[in-house]
Amino acid sequence: MCICEGVRACKELYTLRPNLIEFGIATNEIDVSLFESVSFFVIEKHIFEKLSATVNTQGIILISKIPECPVHEQAESPFALVLDSLSDPGNFGTILRTCASAGLKDVWYSADSVDPYSEKTIRSALSSQFALNMHRYEDINSLILKLRSFGYDKVFRTEPAEGKSCFCEEKLFDKSVIIFGNEANGIKEVDSSIPINIPMPGKFESLNVAQAVTVILFEAVRRRVFG
Amino acid sequence: MCICEGVRACKELYTLRPNLIEFGIATNEIDVSLFESVSFFVIEKHIFEKLSATVNTQGIILISKIPECPVHEQAESPFALVLDSLSDPGNFGTILRTCASAGLKDVWYSADSVDPYSEKTIRSALSSQFALNMHRYEDINSLILKLRSFGYDKVFRTEPAEGKSCFCEEKLFDKSVIIFGNEANGIKEVDSSIPINIPMPGKFESLNVAQAVTVILFEAVRRRVFG
Repeated sequence: MCICEGVRACKELYTLRPNLIEFGIATNEIDVSLFESVSFFVIEKHIFEKLSATVNTQGIILISKIPECPVHEQAESPFALVLDSLSDPGNFGTILRTCASAGLKDVWYSADSVDPYSEKTIRSALSSQFALNMHRYEDINSLILKLRSFGYDKVFRTEPAEGKSCFCEEKLFDKSVIIFGNEANGIKEVDSSIPINIPMPGKFESLNVAQAVTVILFEAVRRRVFG
Repeated sequence: MCICEGVRACKELYTLRPNLIEFGIATNEIDVSLFESVSFFVIEKHIFEKLSATVNTQGIILISKIPECPVHEQAESPFALVLDSLSDPGNFGTILRTCASAGLKDVWYSADSVDPYSEKTIRSALSSQFALNMHRYEDINSLILKLRSFGYDKVFRTEPAEGKSCFCEEKLFDKSVIIFGNEANGIKEVDSSIPINIPMPGKFESLNVAQAVTVILFEAVRRRVFG
């Protein structure tokens, strides 16, 4: 089970996966009639504030089952986005929201990442993890073998200064795997992977991993890789 | 004055603007010899933890003057990035870090935004606000008049669904103004501004403002607008 808090995240969850929702908790200031099929516990605001993980509570929480990831023999996405060992729930949530907006269907994430269904990740993702097939993996090299067997045969890893520019690599989204690493430590060794970089003309060279994912995903949008 | 906390943010600040730093505070576990010209108060870890705004303190804080923004009759940047009423310090910091990485020199931000020199904004920006000319403005329509007088004569506002795609608008970075609005409420009315949008092929249409800025700035990098 997981906790989804806030008006917008709850609305998105209800739109995406109403059948997963077990029940809701709201203050009497919230109009819950939007959430037709959900049973609500309506409580007073000062009690709700004790339940809430946020400072300025919006007065609504949904308790939901965690979606199971469908098992495909082949994934649907034009390329496989792999998030290895992400440690910040806000970053992780922002990345998922960006994936869902860009039109990506599948995301692979390592078992040692922060939980994509933690309260903070759901808030920051505005429930977009419920719009995605979230594939969890234990070991990156075994994952790469499996993805190669699905036909994703070129493996790119994002590096700060090595390799071709992401704007010049023609095969970047051509049944490829693209790996993003941990915020502080970067990417682990991955067998026969190809470095690519995001050019940074500024003297201050430092992109947050969520920004790096955004650059790559919207380069795919620009090239009309999706749908 | 402002507070810069954490190893990486302090290193960046020291590299960028050593003369602004008044003094430092560190635990005895930190090697402060890197910060040659700075006087440090070295204190015990359990006392430092009381000063620190973070849960897992890194044991170093610099106290710095806030840089003055140089007054130019003309700005140096190929286009003017305007951030109107940003309310989240983490977002604001991420945006500044992305601006500095992309190679932008000038940023305009409204007086009703969160403080770009707050502790949290500095941490999230890794001190990149010290690499930028930060121009504060009171009223957006007066700002636009001033920017037009500098030769920035096309004014674009980012909208979720209106206007040309940012990938197709040829004049997007051609001595233009590009306005990004508040996280929740979007953009205020701006006289004779032109809408542009970031195409989102996903069914889940929602980009964080920091991700929207990233898409636009790296479209400029891709078109080699900088340097």
